[in-house]
Amino acid sequence: MRATDFIQAKRDGRNHGADELIEFVRELTAGEIPDYQVAAWLMAVYFQGLSDHETAVMTEALADSGDRIDLSGLPHTVDKHSTGGVGDKTTLVLAPLVAALGATVAKVSGRALGHTGGTIDKLESIVGFRTDLSDEEFLRLASDVGVVIACQSKDLAPADGVIYALRNATATVESLPLIAASVMSKKLAGGAASILLDVKVGRGTFMTDLQQGRTLARVMRTIGRRAGREVRVVLSSMDQPLGWAVGHALEVREALATLEGEGPEDLRSLVTVLAAQLLEASDLDADPERIEAALDDGSARAKFASWIEGQGGDLNAEGSLALAPGEATLTAWRDGVVHDLDAMLVGRALGPLGGARSRKGDAIDLGVGVRLQAKIGDTVEEGQPLATVVHRDGRGADEALAELGRAFVIADHTPQPYRLVLDVLRAGG
Amino acid sequence: MRATDFIQAKRDGRNHGADELIEFVRELTAGEIPDYQVAAWLMAVYFQGLSDHETAVMTEALADSGDRIDLSGLPHTVDKHSTGGVGDKTTLVLAPLVAALGATVAKVSGRALGHTGGTIDKLESIVGFRTDLSDEEFLRLASDVGVVIACQSKDLAPADGVIYALRNATATVESLPLIAASVMSKKLAGGAASILLDVKVGRGTFMTDLQQGRTLARVMRTIGRRAGREVRVVLSSMDQPLGWAVGHALEVREALATLEGEGPEDLRSLVTVLAAQLLEASDLDADPERIEAALDDGSARAKFASWIEGQGGDLNAEGSLALAPGEATLTAWRDGVVHDLDAMLVGRALGPLGGARSRKGDAIDLGVGVRLQAKIGDTVEEGQPLATVVHRDGRGADEALAELGRAFVIADHTPQPYRLVLDVLRAGG
Repeated sequence: MRATDFIQAKRDGRNHGADELIEFVRELTAGEIPDYQVAAWLMAVYFQGLSDHETAVMTEALADSGDRIDLSGLPHTVDKHSTGGVGDKTTLVLAPLVAALGATVAKVSGRALGHTGGTIDKLESIVGFRTDLSDEEFLRLASDVGVVIACQSKDLAPADGVIYALRNATATVESLPLIAASVMSKKLAGGAASILLDVKVGRGTFMTDLQQGRTLARVMRTIGRRAGREVRVVLSSMDQPLGWAVGHALEVREALATLEGEGPEDLRSLVTVLAAQLLEASDLDADPERIEAALDDGSARAKFASWIEGQGGDLNAEGSLALAPGEATLTAWRDGVVHDLDAMLVGRALGPLGGARSRKGDAIDLGVGVRLQAKIGDTVEEGQPLATVVHRDGRGADEALAELGRAFVIADHTPQPYRLVLDVLRAGG
Repeated sequence: MRATDFIQAKRDGRNHGADELIEFVRELTAGEIPDYQVAAWLMAVYFQGLSDHETAVMTEALADSGDRIDLSGLPHTVDKHSTGGVGDKTTLVLAPLVAALGATVAKVSGRALGHTGGTIDKLESIVGFRTDLSDEEFLRLASDVGVVIACQSKDLAPADGVIYALRNATATVESLPLIAASVMSKKLAGGAASILLDVKVGRGTFMTDLQQGRTLARVMRTIGRRAGREVRVVLSSMDQPLGWAVGHALEVREALATLEGEGPEDLRSLVTVLAAQLLEASDLDADPERIEAALDDGSARAKFASWIEGQGGDLNAEGSLALAPGEATLTAWRDGVVHDLDAMLVGRALGPLGGARSRKGDAIDLGVGVRLQAKIGDTVEEGQPLATVVHRDGRGADEALAELGRAFVIADHTPQPYRLVLDVLRAGG
C-alpha cells in the first residue's frame, strides 16, 4: 500500500477497504508510516468522515495493535467511559457502587488533558495509591476486590496512543469517527463484557450539540455490538459542572461524601442512572431502591475502602486528599437568579491555579480547585458567596476568580429547568 | 502562535492574518513546527482554500525564507515556468530563442518528479553540462551569454522546499493556492522582471479543467502584480504529449531540431506564442516574423550552442544525447483515425523503462523514452507504426508498450480539431 494513495482516497471521499485500514494501522504501529502522513490522513478524515464499517474495522485494528486483557474468567465484568466534563467524578462513586452490587469493575483510564480532569490523577491525591499495576495485580484485584482502575499502559492499543497524540497536535480531535474508534479500541482491548458510555453534551465538552452526541453514541454502540459487547449509552448534560467540587482532591472528597449518603444531588442522581444501566447490562438486579440503599447503608463506601487499600492507598495518611491552604471567594454582584454557569469557564479556572495539564507529562497541583456555592436556578443575594477558589500561595487566584466571574450569569428571571440526563440508549440501531 | 490554533482556524474556514502566516512560514523554515502539523495544515488548506490575499502573503513569505537573486543590473530579464506536462521541452527552445532576440533568461529549475520530465534532467543528458552553479557563475552567464538555467539550490525559497516535499507525501499537491504560492515564490526569489507561466491543462497534468487553469492563472498573476512583476500566462493543452519525443535525451534532440528550423509543428507553434508574450512583456520587439526568422536563420541555434558551452556542456562529446540501444514498436491494430492519445498514459510508459523518478533522489536513465509516430487526427493503417519505445536491454519495454497501447484510441470518425493554445492572459484581474 502506498500511503499517499491511501490519503488521497480518503481526501476524495472514498471508503477504505478493510484490508487497507488494517494494513495502515499495522504500519503505523510499526512506525513505518511517518507522522506527517498519518496527520494528513486524520485531517482528510475530519473532512470526509469514516463509514460505520470503516470505523468498526479501524477500532478492532487499534485494539489489536497491542495486548488485550482477558477478563473472561471473571463474573459480570463492566467498564465505563465518560467523554469528559468538568467536575465529573462519577467513576469514583459508580465503580465501588456497582462492585458492591455484584459487578466486577476492571477499568483502564487515561490522564487528564486540558480543562477536564482525569480519574487517574484524582485517585493519586490519595497517598500511596498506585495506578501502574502489573497484569497479574490487575487481574488479582479485579477478582479479589471487584474494583480495579489502572493507568493505561503503552501495551494497550498503542496505535491509538500514536493517533491520539497526533490528533491533539493537529486540531483533529473533534471528529466523531475518530473519537468513537479511540474510545472503543481501549474498551475492546480492556476486555469487559459490558460497557457503559457516558457521553457528555454541552459547553464543558467537545460535544456541544445533542444530535452530535446521539450520532457518536450510535457509532460506538454499533462498534461494541459487532465485537459482541453489551453497550449502553447515557447522554448527560455538561452545560454546568457536575456537583460542587472541581479539582482533584476536592472531587475525591465529594465522591466520598456521596458514598456516605451525602454529596450533591445531581451527582447522586446521575450515578444511580448509570449504575442501573451497568447492572442491567450485566444481568444483575438493577432495582433503583437497591442502588440507593447501597449508597446509604455504607456498603458502597466499604467497597471504596477495600478498593483504595487494594491499590495501596491510605486515606488516613497525612497528605491524603490535602487541599491547598489559600481560599478566595467570588461573591454575587447583584441580587437575582443564577441564570447560567458555564462549565467550560469553570474548568478553565483550574489552569492558572496549576491544577490542569496543558501538555502531556506536565506536573499538576492536586490540591487546588473550585468549590461552587451556587448553581443554575439558585436565588442569590448581592454579597453572597458564589464560589471559592482553593489556591496555593495566591498562584493564579485572581485569574481564576475572573474566569468564574465570567462563568456566572445572574439575571432577574428564572432559567429553564436544568436537565441532567438527556437520553438513555439501551439497544437497537 | 500555537500551531494547533493556526491549523484549527484554517480547518474551520477562517482566513489567516498576514502576521500569522509570515510567522508560520518563519517557524517552519527554522524547523520549529513539526512536519505533522504542517501536513495537517496543508490538508486543511486543500479543503478550505486560501484567499488571494493569504496566497500573496504566503508567497512573499516563502520567497523571503531564503536568498533572493538580484538581477536588477541586467536588461530585459525574463523567467518562465511550465506547470508540467508530457514531452514538454519548450524551455529548451524558448530560452535561447528569446535570448537571441534581446532578453536575458535567468532561470532556476527543479528536477522531475512523477510522470513529467524536468528541464534540469534533460539538460544533463549533455556531457559536461553543469547545473549546480555558484551565484557568481549564474550572474556572469546571464550577463555574458544571456541564458542560464541552474538547478534550484537549497537557499532559494527553502520553506517552499519543505512544503513541496510534504505535499508530495500527503496527497495535497492538487491545491490551487498551494500550487500558485509554490511556483510564484520561486519566481519572485529568482528575480526576473517578467515572468511567463505556461499553465498546462489536460490529462497529462494535474489541471484537467480549463476553468481551474484560468483560476490558477488569475491567482498567480495577482501575486506577481502585487510584487511588481510583469506576468503573462498562456493556457495550453496537454491532452496529448507535445511534439513527438518523450524522454530526456530524446527531447533535447527534438528541441535541437526545432532550433534548426525543423521539429514538430505543435512545438514550434507553442514556442512562438510563448516567445511573443515574453518579448512583449519585456518591452522587446515581439513581431511574429522576427521570431520565426530567429528559428530559421540559425541565430537561436547559435545562442543554444553558447548557452550549453557556457555551462560546460559538450554536444559533440561521446555520450552526449546518447539513446538506449533497444527499440520496440507499437503498430496500429486496425485502420482508422487516431481519435485520442492520452498524455498521462504516454508519460507513465517512462516509469517501467527507468526514465521517471518515483522518489526524490532516484537515479534515472536519460537515454530511454518514447518516439511517437502518430498523433490525434492522423489517419493510420493496420500494421503502421504508432510509436517506438527506446529501451535498455528490454527493461520495461513490454509494460511501456502496453501503456502506449492503452494511450492510443483508433476510431472510424475524425476527432474534434486539437486546440493547442487555449488562452493567453495579458493583463487585468
